[in-house]
Amino acid sequence: MSESAILLINCPDRPGLVAQITDFIFRHQGNILHLDQHVDAQENVFFMRVEWELAQFNLPREAIAAQFAPLAARYAMTWRLHFSADVLKMVMFVSKEAHAMVDVLSRWQSGEFQVEIPLIVSNHPDLQPVAAQFGIPFQQFSIHKDNKAAVEQAQLALLATVQPDFIVLARYMQIITDAFIQQYPMRIINIHHSFLPAFIGAKPYHQAYSRGVKIIGATGHYVTADLDAGPIIEQDVTRITHRDSVPDMVRRGRDLEKTVLSRAIYYHLNHRILVYNNKTVVF
Amino acid sequence: MSESAILLINCPDRPGLVAQITDFIFRHQGNILHLDQHVDAQENVFFMRVEWELAQFNLPREAIAAQFAPLAARYAMTWRLHFSADVLKMVMFVSKEAHAMVDVLSRWQSGEFQVEIPLIVSNHPDLQPVAAQFGIPFQQFSIHKDNKAAVEQAQLALLATVQPDFIVLARYMQIITDAFIQQYPMRIINIHHSFLPAFIGAKPYHQAYSRGVKIIGATGHYVTADLDAGPIIEQDVTRITHRDSVPDMVRRGRDLEKTVLSRAIYYHLNHRILVYNNKTVVF
Amino acid sequence: MSESAILLINCPDRPGLVAQITDFIFRHQGNILHLDQHVDAQENVFFMRVEWELAQFNLPREAIAAQFAPLAARYAMTWRLHFSADVLKMVMFVSKEAHAMVDVLSRWQSGEFQVEIPLIVSNHPDLQPVAAQFGIPFQQFSIHKDNKAAVEQAQLALLATVQPDFIVLARYMQIITDAFIQQYPMRIINIHHSFLPAFIGAKPYHQAYSRGVKIIGATGHYVTADLDAGPIIEQDVTRITHRDSVPDMVRRGRDLEKTVLSRAIYYHLNHRILVYNNKTVVF
Amino acid sequence: MSESAILLINCPDRPGLVAQITDFIFRHQGNILHLDQHVDAQENVFFMRVEWELAQFNLPREAIAAQFAPLAARYAMTWRLHFSADVLKMVMFVSKEAHAMVDVLSRWQSGEFQVEIPLIVSNHPDLQPVAAQFGIPFQQFSIHKDNKAAVEQAQLALLATVQPDFIVLARYMQIITDAFIQQYPMRIINIHHSFLPAFIGAKPYHQAYSRGVKIIGATGHYVTADLDAGPIIEQDVTRITHRDSVPDMVRRGRDLEKTVLSRAIYYHLNHRILVYNNKTVVF
Repeated sequence: MSESAILLINCPDRPGLVAQITDFIFRHQGNILHLDQHVDAQENVFFMRVEWELAQFNLPREAIAAQFAPLAARYAMTWRLHFSADVLKMVMFVSKEAHAMVDVLSRWQSGEFQVEIPLIVSNHPDLQPVAAQFGIPFQQFSIHKDNKAAVEQAQLALLATVQPDFIVLARYMQIITDAFIQQYPMRIINIHHSFLPAFIGAKPYHQAYSRGVKIIGATGHYVTADLDAGPIIEQDVTRITHRDSVPDMVRRGRDLEKTVLSRAIYYHLNHRILVYNNKTVVF
Repeated sequence: MSESAILLINCPDRPGLVAQITDFIFRHQGNILHLDQHVDAQENVFFMRVEWELAQFNLPREAIAAQFAPLAARYAMTWRLHFSADVLKMVMFVSKEAHAMVDVLSRWQSGEFQVEIPLIVSNHPDLQPVAAQFGIPFQQFSIHKDNKAAVEQAQLALLATVQPDFIVLARYMQIITDAFIQQYPMRIINIHHSFLPAFIGAKPYHQAYSRGVKIIGATGHYVTADLDAGPIIEQDVTRITHRDSVPDMVRRGRDLEKTVLSRAIYYHLNHRILVYNNKTVVF
Repeated sequence: MSESAILLINCPDRPGLVAQITDFIFRHQGNILHLDQHVDAQENVFFMRVEWELAQFNLPREAIAAQFAPLAARYAMTWRLHFSADVLKMVMFVSKEAHAMVDVLSRWQSGEFQVEIPLIVSNHPDLQPVAAQFGIPFQQFSIHKDNKAAVEQAQLALLATVQPDFIVLARYMQIITDAFIQQYPMRIINIHHSFLPAFIGAKPYHQAYSRGVKIIGATGHYVTADLDAGPIIEQDVTRITHRDSVPDMVRRGRDLEKTVLSRAIYYHLNHRILVYNNKTVVF
Repeated sequence: MSESAILLINCPDRPGLVAQITDFIFRHQGNILHLDQHVDAQENVFFMRVEWELAQFNLPREAIAAQFAPLAARYAMTWRLHFSADVLKMVMFVSKEAHAMVDVLSRWQSGEFQVEIPLIVSNHPDLQPVAAQFGIPFQQFSIHKDNKAAVEQAQLALLATVQPDFIVLARYMQIITDAFIQQYPMRIINIHHSFLPAFIGAKPYHQAYSRGVKIIGATGHYVTADLDAGPIIEQDVTRITHRDSVPDMVRRGRDLEKTVLSRAIYYHLNHRILVYNNKTVVF
């Protein structure tokens, strides 16, 4: 698989956008591998993801952005350029439950996720041995009522030494402050164990049990200042019955959480997500 | 298919309940066709549905309740006895959208639903011709701000002439008052076009679009005084993407609404629903 | 909603295809509403569907094909041009079961399907009254062992008077000969009541019951000379358990059949299907 | 959670079975936790699973079977008695792909699976380090055309030292001989990466790609002498599109395989599966 470039664009919709963008690639002898575009007719916004091979492309990697910039400026584009060969750095935050963390580590270990994992952070020591099984450095920060701000500062300082591209909250179970989030905007992925916007906040399976729903879900989303209200990346659900107690939901929900979180990470790693108006376009 | 009797029971859980109930049927030479039981361990409540053939049963239909009553009293059972041969009467309330109504009528016409439909009520005249296609009497009540109470009284009076066993709101789009609901407790089934408890109230597809969910749903539930908060009978969902506009959701949601409503009606017609603590046990 | 043009293309993949096609539309001042493209990397085939508004387009409808032809020829494209304003003509073939037919008619009646239905054909008289309810002409052909060829000739002659754009087999339950199919290549849609390629041929629910599957399905596909082996347009499934007898599967399968058939028709009506190598690309 | 006893029964259906069985439990002061019964009306077979607490039960564990035997004999029951406190021994057979194996090990490590795993067997050395991560002994047997029978004999000899209750083929990718299977009847669980009976045998994702299906699946089943034709325990599916290449299916299928296999193991561990006529009843 040769290296490819990935361009993500959103801008006000106008005739000719696809023609001009694809002509830019064609003129420089790029071969398009994937092209997706979408127009939000209600908001009049154009979205596009285009991926092309760099093998015959007649611009060097480092020159592409500068060459594309004038076209982007003409159409008031918000845009990002990525390269498939660049390996992202991901830090995981965990708590006591292993399933989501192990599932991600297993995908990394088998090569399904092309990602570097320099660090796992936790507020409890429980999962240290599991991190060690996979050879990942593990840093624990005990959190109590009075040290939350100090811990976050220490975590940010530690992260600064690692420079992660994004952070995954794999059942971290702690609310992160706005100050922290602003250091990693649209770069923190959380898995919430409900079908959002139903059952925001703590103990969603207990909430689901009380309400008597017939289906439970999980939601992968970017973290914003509003609790469990950030842009939804992926969701999935499973059917339950009156026979499912809360522990049954917890057990069955773990499978949803693993699958949904891994899809959200996969989309993020492959630069397939555009965020607009607190919603995602996932190409 | 010979006639059968159906007994629905809930009571405090105690050892011996299944043995005693099935012994009652066995002693009278009934052959059990279906038996489902469930214990809500958290609430310590026992639920049971048992259906047996009446062909060899040595009690006549009309004597069964009296013979079962002492056992029921001993265990403080809440219980109902139904007979498969009894055809229920169902009135449908509709508004302007045909899909749910036609789907129910089609199931009735083909014999899938063993039910009598003496009347369709609407707040708009639009669906009168469709009701006529199926030969069902149609009564329209124009509703405006100042006549809601009067219309409900007129509707109740009309219903009194028909004596329905239950009412189905097939996208009726009007909020029914508590006074009306109390005439038909756990006997009014509504289809709500969202995955409750998400998106309660008006325009759920618009709410879903704004929130950017990746899955939409529909919920069939009994109507209670709290809006869209009654016991959930059935739910189903379908996956959407950023490409689905509100009209797309409306179109795709219609299929969910039809399927979910028809399942809720089917369970009700077959006496498979027990309500407890604002939740349902569907056997 | 103004009129739009829809272009469906497949051809050998080469750099520049998207750029050239979208440039053609842009140069003539068309505004693209939807664009989907796909490259089958294994077969090296390029697929595209592009839809644009005709309001400002500076070519008249009738001139578009001729203007596009040279570009198409240069890239060896297989292509079709459709207009959203053209209403297709659909004939339905049915047998004894009403559910699929009524579901389609209901969507037509409510305006969900923009289609003309000049005729329903059946091998049994049972559904004549239902067709009459919806005001659709109904023609019955009794089929027995010795008259199959003659009946097909009579059916083709009748169809010739109606000139349908496509035919829908809504649980017709008869095998159609190759000679018939060749008159309507990729223009006959069938709904098969299994998750193909499992359970080809007769009585798929019985086959599913015998095999003890935990999920049943339905498949909408174009009819080809190989029984139940034509290009699959759409499939869906539902979970069953050991409690579901064959009649339960039949009942629950009807909902799948209705939904899957209607989606297949919807994609066909909206010119969203490309067929290649006995497979479909559904944009 | 106190210890419980689990009784699994199938026999010809007759009136009074539930009454007599539950009376046996009640007379000995057992408190029923779960009771499920099912009658296959077509085959006239009665199935039952009943689980009761042993705390107040007035028969010691070791006396239950003997006391129950006369009742079982009277009704020609096929029956098994299990105790929740008994921990089963499971051996896993793997090949080169880690995902299913790691998922099972992770569930075992976190306590979701109450099982003992004394051994992992493989025909390749690749997963030895992963087994070591979890501290499980790993035995590799190189298999080539001429030593298959000898390897199976060696495997059986090794298994004899471990005495597993059941074997899980976690993507083992080797066909097991009938002689081997007969040593562990209905005690070998396989995960097949298709929605059986579609795509039996090798390379099911390639087969699915060629056929152009819109949904792929996975099947957990007991291994019998007929390839991929044993009793199905669990299945699940996921939707795909023309955009999914074979590698995409492989990647997405892994999640299905993990979930379906783990559910099959869970049902087996909890003694919830009855096999009859090459089909399963899963209570």
